[in-house]
Amino acid sequence: MSLRSEIFEQPTILEQLLTEQMGLAREIAQAIQKSDVHYVFLAARGTSDNAGRYANYLWGGINRLPIALATPSLFTLYEQPPNLRDALVVGISQSGQSPDIIAVLEEGKRQGCLTLAVTNATGSPLAKTADFVLDIRAGQELSVAATKTYTAELMAIAMLSVALDKNTNRHRELEQVPAWVTETLALEERISRIAERYRYMEQCVVLGRGYNYATAFEWSLKLKELTYVVADPYSSADFLHGPIAMVDQGFPVMAAVPDGRVFDNMLTLLKRLRLEHHAELLVISNREEAIQLAQSAVQLPVGIPEWLSPIVCIVPAQLFAYYLANTKGYDTEVPRSIHKITRTE
Amino acid sequence: MSLRSEIFEQPTILEQLLTEQMGLAREIAQAIQKSDVHYVFLAARGTSDNAGRYANYLWGGINRLPIALATPSLFTLYEQPPNLRDALVVGISQSGQSPDIIAVLEEGKRQGCLTLAVTNATGSPLAKTADFVLDIRAGQELSVAATKTYTAELMAIAMLSVALDKNTNRHRELEQVPAWVTETLALEERISRIAERYRYMEQCVVLGRGYNYATAFEWSLKLKELTYVVADPYSSADFLHGPIAMVDQGFPVMAAVPDGRVFDNMLTLLKRLRLEHHAELLVISNREEAIQLAQSAVQLPVGIPEWLSPIVCIVPAQLFAYYLANTKGYDTEVPRSIHKITRTE
Repeated sequence: MSLRSEIFEQPTILEQLLTEQMGLAREIAQAIQKSDVHYVFLAARGTSDNAGRYANYLWGGINRLPIALATPSLFTLYEQPPNLRDALVVGISQSGQSPDIIAVLEEGKRQGCLTLAVTNATGSPLAKTADFVLDIRAGQELSVAATKTYTAELMAIAMLSVALDKNTNRHRELEQVPAWVTETLALEERISRIAERYRYMEQCVVLGRGYNYATAFEWSLKLKELTYVVADPYSSADFLHGPIAMVDQGFPVMAAVPDGRVFDNMLTLLKRLRLEHHAELLVISNREEAIQLAQSAVQLPVGIPEWLSPIVCIVPAQLFAYYLANTKGYDTEVPRSIHKITRTE
Repeated sequence: MSLRSEIFEQPTILEQLLTEQMGLAREIAQAIQKSDVHYVFLAARGTSDNAGRYANYLWGGINRLPIALATPSLFTLYEQPPNLRDALVVGISQSGQSPDIIAVLEEGKRQGCLTLAVTNATGSPLAKTADFVLDIRAGQELSVAATKTYTAELMAIAMLSVALDKNTNRHRELEQVPAWVTETLALEERISRIAERYRYMEQCVVLGRGYNYATAFEWSLKLKELTYVVADPYSSADFLHGPIAMVDQGFPVMAAVPDGRVFDNMLTLLKRLRLEHHAELLVISNREEAIQLAQSAVQLPVGIPEWLSPIVCIVPAQLFAYYLANTKGYDTEVPRSIHKITRTE
């Protein structure tokens, strides 16, 4: 049962990562500050791409760095890479093996950009290509569905954000993350019971906005990988521009809605979905208004700052996907048709 | 029946747009070339966001401009916009009314960036904010589901790409687009028959890569808006990093696979889906290998250069969504729960 144990390893891994790699994060931050970076060009796939979505908000909002998410096929199949002057080129990959992500970093280097790899494999081709390597130190991940490497990638991204920032308060907040994750893991039994209700769910949408846009994508990816449910992720804003039309009586909507700047906006949408569309809601939240509204709810610890909430919010979603897969009778260790390392061009 | 007639207006609109706005596109291109733009920061929602995905490949690959797709909530709900120095800030919006897209352009202007609006409403707040306005001149669009404004936005993006480029050959290719669209519209009867087969489809995935990543997203959005099918869009590469696990016997996969640099890569994936997963394939293609592989196929004109294929490829997909909605007995003019102008923050 490596998946469940990997989910439960997360507090320890996050704590160690913070202790062991914060010095390196500060070094990387100094190099970035010295090199007049105008924006970040970020390449990733799958779970790591969802970590990139977190960077998009965190580095964009707090560190004021715009992020361009790379289109790797321009570097591989098309052989027409864009001009990357003054970009910091970042590759995020657990295995460091995917040729398309490596190609983006190689091109960044060729063009004289500063390059950074965030990876679990310091000996990988991706790590060897980069100027700097932020090792997420998650240990070997045996399950095909990534869990601990995702939260470790988020933590590495958050550490770099703190290192780039002068506000020392934020480092203290970062240190509380492992304890919040531990508290959330204690909800396991409740989550396993919630999962039963969705035994026959075949499709759903997953909503999250701002920092938790990443959570919506990663939650939805875990559902697809482990339970084969067609789970479609959206921000509340994109959802209103068309896809909301799909939702009628009983349609399942999952939502990551922790307290924060986007909470009211998300709550307005959830009210509309519940009261006008008669949707079925499952929410992960630490606000009573959201919890009361939903048929099923997972209650997060209170007091988590919004910028760190994605690292905590995804944990009950991982457990939900794990238990739903069990309830549906699927193999959680080796989901059909996918492999741990995916080499795409 | 405004939706069908708007779909059929497309050749005329594209032709007029090219004739009437190419001069302006060249002026805008000159301003961009003069102002030392390092990258494009692009804000859009819904259908217009899919047009942005086309720009991501076209401007990125051919004009070598990296594109950062904006996270509008950083400008609105979070009030923490990134530092946009040396960015060209672009807003794409049919109505020019959405507050979040306007907020991104306003901030770009405040920071001294060059700003461009691509819109169907030159009197809109978005247009009034921008330094330059590329009017897509699609005429009033009555249907809630956007069709002609999407292809007109793609055409405007392609015109700007040609204007930024020294290769005059590409302008001649652009002039052929209306004729290809006309040829494709002639397939209406065949497409209406194909749609019947999917009467009871409730979910599917839609695949496209490179330039036609945009087509996968827009096709999927039309299905959600008009037929309420849960349609999940992917690039072939992202699909392999997890979501492929959902596909088993008979699972419907739609794919936009015109001839081009990514064709072989897409074909390999489609073969795997058909032969190993026993998926149901519907393809839009002009290559025999893809057409032979699928249970249903729409045959595109041959000889369309890949960079223009998204403007043609989406047309049969629009007709398919229109006829599937009819087959399922839904109102194609006023889909449930959505409105023509969506004002998100």
